[in-house]
Amino acid sequence: MTERILVINPNSSVEVTAGIDRALDDLRSPGGAQIECLTLAEGPPGIESQRHVDSVVLPLCRLVEANDNRASAFVIACFSDPGLHALRETTQRPVLGIAESGLLTALTLGERVGIIAILATSIPRHGRFVRALGIESRLAGELPIGLGVSELADEEVTLGRMTEVGRRLRDKHGADVLVMGCAGMARYRARLEATLGLPVVDPTQAAVGMALTAARLGYRTAAQR
Amino acid sequence: MTERILVINPNSSVEVTAGIDRALDDLRSPGGAQIECLTLAEGPPGIESQRHVDSVVLPLCRLVEANDNRASAFVIACFSDPGLHALRETTQRPVLGIAESGLLTALTLGERVGIIAILATSIPRHGRFVRALGIESRLAGELPIGLGVSELADEEVTLGRMTEVGRRLRDKHGADVLVMGCAGMARYRARLEATLGLPVVDPTQAAVGMALTAARLGYRTAAQR
Amino acid sequence: MTERILVINPNSSVEVTAGIDRALDDLRSPGGAQIECLTLAEGPPGIESQRHVDSVVLPLCRLVEANDNRASAFVIACFSDPGLHALRETTQRPVLGIAESGLLTALTLGERVGIIAILATSIPRHGRFVRALGIESRLAGELPIGLGVSELADEEVTLGRMTEVGRRLRDKHGADVLVMGCAGMARYRARLEATLGLPVVDPTQAAVGMALTAARLGYRTAAQR
Amino acid sequence: MTERILVINPNSSVEVTAGIDRALDDLRSPGGAQIECLTLAEGPPGIESQRHVDSVVLPLCRLVEANDNRASAFVIACFSDPGLHALRETTQRPVLGIAESGLLTALTLGERVGIIAILATSIPRHGRFVRALGIESRLAGELPIGLGVSELADEEVTLGRMTEVGRRLRDKHGADVLVMGCAGMARYRARLEATLGLPVVDPTQAAVGMALTAARLGYRTAAQR
Amino acid sequence: MTERILVINPNSSVEVTAGIDRALDDLRSPGGAQIECLTLAEGPPGIESQRHVDSVVLPLCRLVEANDNRASAFVIACFSDPGLHALRETTQRPVLGIAESGLLTALTLGERVGIIAILATSIPRHGRFVRALGIESRLAGELPIGLGVSELADEEVTLGRMTEVGRRLRDKHGADVLVMGCAGMARYRARLEATLGLPVVDPTQAAVGMALTAARLGYRTAAQR
Amino acid sequence: MTERILVINPNSSVEVTAGIDRALDDLRSPGGAQIECLTLAEGPPGIESQRHVDSVVLPLCRLVEANDNRASAFVIACFSDPGLHALRETTQRPVLGIAESGLLTALTLGERVGIIAILATSIPRHGRFVRALGIESRLAGELPIGLGVSELADEEVTLGRMTEVGRRLRDKHGADVLVMGCAGMARYRARLEATLGLPVVDPTQAAVGMALTAARLGYRTAAQR
Repeated sequence: MTERILVINPNSSVEVTAGIDRALDDLRSPGGAQIECLTLAEGPPGIESQRHVDSVVLPLCRLVEANDNRASAFVIACFSDPGLHALRETTQRPVLGIAESGLLTALTLGERVGIIAILATSIPRHGRFVRALGIESRLAGELPIGLGVSELADEEVTLGRMTEVGRRLRDKHGADVLVMGCAGMARYRARLEATLGLPVVDPTQAAVGMALTAARLGYRTAAQR
Repeated sequence: MTERILVINPNSSVEVTAGIDRALDDLRSPGGAQIECLTLAEGPPGIESQRHVDSVVLPLCRLVEANDNRASAFVIACFSDPGLHALRETTQRPVLGIAESGLLTALTLGERVGIIAILATSIPRHGRFVRALGIESRLAGELPIGLGVSELADEEVTLGRMTEVGRRLRDKHGADVLVMGCAGMARYRARLEATLGLPVVDPTQAAVGMALTAARLGYRTAAQR
Repeated sequence: MTERILVINPNSSVEVTAGIDRALDDLRSPGGAQIECLTLAEGPPGIESQRHVDSVVLPLCRLVEANDNRASAFVIACFSDPGLHALRETTQRPVLGIAESGLLTALTLGERVGIIAILATSIPRHGRFVRALGIESRLAGELPIGLGVSELADEEVTLGRMTEVGRRLRDKHGADVLVMGCAGMARYRARLEATLGLPVVDPTQAAVGMALTAARLGYRTAAQR
Repeated sequence: MTERILVINPNSSVEVTAGIDRALDDLRSPGGAQIECLTLAEGPPGIESQRHVDSVVLPLCRLVEANDNRASAFVIACFSDPGLHALRETTQRPVLGIAESGLLTALTLGERVGIIAILATSIPRHGRFVRALGIESRLAGELPIGLGVSELADEEVTLGRMTEVGRRLRDKHGADVLVMGCAGMARYRARLEATLGLPVVDPTQAAVGMALTAARLGYRTAAQR
Repeated sequence: MTERILVINPNSSVEVTAGIDRALDDLRSPGGAQIECLTLAEGPPGIESQRHVDSVVLPLCRLVEANDNRASAFVIACFSDPGLHALRETTQRPVLGIAESGLLTALTLGERVGIIAILATSIPRHGRFVRALGIESRLAGELPIGLGVSELADEEVTLGRMTEVGRRLRDKHGADVLVMGCAGMARYRARLEATLGLPVVDPTQAAVGMALTAARLGYRTAAQR
Repeated sequence: MTERILVINPNSSVEVTAGIDRALDDLRSPGGAQIECLTLAEGPPGIESQRHVDSVVLPLCRLVEANDNRASAFVIACFSDPGLHALRETTQRPVLGIAESGLLTALTLGERVGIIAILATSIPRHGRFVRALGIESRLAGELPIGLGVSELADEEVTLGRMTEVGRRLRDKHGADVLVMGCAGMARYRARLEATLGLPVVDPTQAAVGMALTAARLGYRTAAQR
């Protein structure tokens, strides 16, 4: 039997979902697990506040329940990991969050992790997450690129800002591995790595990787006791 | 092209290597990556001290260099992760250690991690590792089963001790996820999970899972700058 | 002008709200701030899972918005602090959570804090909260009394269990101050203190105390930037 | 019966005491608790070293003992919290320190706390305090304004330096809430908040707020066992 | 020129000073530094509370000033390290505290440190000290022997209790090195080590050892800037 | 009987060993312990990578075994503390590493420790060491001087860079005590202290100081159980 990983974009933008989907081609192979991306219709256009994060949890739970029979594992493709622990109570399948997976993967690639955030206002929220995860001694810092949604569409501007922020994380904060704090930015990964000379983690790829293994091995989380 | 993951058992026991090899069948699939297990001929019969750990680093480096052209990623299959950081300097390929990967994977499955060690004398060594990894606030505790190599051959005795130790980690130390602190014990995983009602991580499986993703995505570690 | 503190019980039980209300009489005084307790009609009968916690955030946000003009500060009276950070984005008024306030208050009364939980399944959730709060080095431990909702009605049984659990936190875990991990248990405080010889914090009282000061001084949280 | 909070300025400057007294008007109300400020005659003109801190402990103990019958709670109005734990052994009444209370209050208002110190030489002393309190993962940084006592009299110069230091804590250190590391600076609070767009805590106000609640609820600290 | 280390017993008991003095014979040698023990006449008979700790700071400062010309370094021989940081401001000579030195020395001998305390009431005070020192992740636990001053005179009873408490620290708390949390107990060291099979640190010996080196190398502490 | 401390330079440069030897004259005295420096013939010319570190462990073990009868204690004179824990299993004598001893000694001299590294690539390796030691909350930062071996021969250039880096650690990172992250640089200590106004620790001197005490007192490490 073949596994099927369902990757859920909790914002309502199908363009974002399409970008996520393309980013996952590297993890697809003939005969391998299916990786399918869904858009949460009830989500906001972008998740930019704690209220946005909390607002998608119940719709996510319902979407997961509706797809529970056809999925081997779920990935929540938003760097705030909305609903991560509620979903782990909701389904018997493994649920991976891209922030958790991206940060844990970065720990295997470098000593001190820098996070490239989109918005400055997300950083305190991520701070709570990093401390709850218990890895704050490995965090070098987090800096925002400070672009609005419309500007993100301009790939050159976005890459320029990510490079600049990545360089500051490397040179001022001592980061030797970077995590892109947003879903669906895998297209920048190779160029950032080449320019900065550091490993760069696309968190959605990292989470799908962990989901493939979890699905295959039949992990059940503690919340399902 | 198909990936090939080389899993190296740093002790010289081919029986242990065979056990590791069987434990990885769950991660093999037709058309998927090859997972090949090697024995370090120069290793001691078992790795039971810091000196044993340090003694295998150079032979591991040479083995990795000799196999660098035919591997996509390497896994070091000993729960002391011998040579992990030296190897990351030695090859451009991803190198995963089973302690690091097993513990990080456990963080996605529960809140507080219990480690089932073989020997009491390994626990201080693992303690240094857990603190260097930076996740000590997530550790519930580590307890030994206290069996010598010959006793480990008796599967029933071993499972009994693991169950007893796992129960103590759960009930006295508050662990809600367990990691087996040894390579090649995957055969006990399902039974421990069923008896204890907790997720149990076989660290070699966890590391091979991370290696599959790392190989596929072409991760390079920071040490290779 | 007189302040008005709105204390919201996020579960739908009006009995629980009444208990909370009585617990706050000690903080009422003629000419002082009004302390008014509300029940969240949309809440579950009890908040016993992460999904319950997340499910009440949007209704809480709406209730806070509807009452924003008539309140000086808000208190969320559930030991999981549901919606704490979303609410701080929602209103300009101070918002206090009883877990956060109860634990911080305990730090002024003792060296190592023990938490008396109702249910074992809440403990991992509280663990994430304590780490996010950043005070895990001050936590002695958390233990459940393990009573269902119906048994909680029996005051003698409940007090007996709380005493037993508090004694274990004191004698085995080294706690020298206790926090009751539930709203509306202030009626047990004096008896627990007398029996155990330790300070005991009712978290709702602690949060209302902090809300009174915050309202008076006009604090605005950082999330409102 | 009405509570009486005794706020003790442990330096001998009655001007400083008068400034503290004015800062507390916001917490006074008709029919509410009395808030009375005392000067420690035996104190040095200013507390600027660890030796100063330690030198006032016994006089503070005697002053507290002499006023024990007429007080409901005590506040020590110096950001080094001199004698905090000795005083908690000395009286049955609640004793609050302004550093402890100010920092804990800041944790409810922002994610990362910046401290505005007067003197550079106080920073190591505060560092020991913050680690003993156990909240160092929430500290963004501490910077001095570097003004001597005579220059502090010039309100404009002082506010200018505090603004400059606060801006650096916000922009370079990532602070999103500030604590003024000195007693009796409440008069700068509103202006700092307006200029910097961050919540600012006057620690004496915070401590008196916690003392009002502690007095009302009859808290006893663990040291009184 | 020969160094002279002044070891100050901050309690007024000359018997205790004599015991400390004998414990230091192992560090004396012909031609080596002089090690001289003084009793603080103004100290209480024993230091058993935070108030006791704080009460001796000024007398200690005066004693150090009076002896500054004839000393190469000072050791404060009480496991609460009274006045440690005030003294470092007071003299240009190195000042070592026995708690600080004993705990740091233990970190070179084992992985997890157990502290054998005299009184239960000292443990919270030591807890603040350990956190301020920043090594709490290396602490296995601290347990009291619970003997009053008169019972301490009975060497057999004392050794029995220390053995029992040391065994519990080893077997239940996972300590692999012990520190005796009191001055002048060096006479029990060898017997505890033999019985328990663990290294045991006498903190006064450890501090005098560090003082000898500090005096020889001419260290100046940061507080003397 | 007189102690003999064997100080082993794990790189093969006899010039480095000679420099170390000179640095230890301050700790020699007539009638005192002998301090003898050895060069590890099998070592690389300099230890600049994790693989170098790991490569010298077995030769170090053999050298220690060969000298066990004539030594009272051993010091490993490389700031990566190669083989520290393996050697503690190998000999009954005390073994001190210069990184461990230098950092612990710095904790007695200041509040926040800055490390002056030679090479940028050593910093992640030292980071793992500092976290394993458990003192990361006391670390202000680590910065490299970035000189190659040949440039290190130029004393003026080296001192200039160390001064510049030390100043940055002091002014930007808040260090109030510095550790020189390399063996045999004691000749710069006095000048750095004078220029920067901070205590500076030569780690080899610190380790030999601890070894003298450990030898005298007959410490045995926990690894020798």
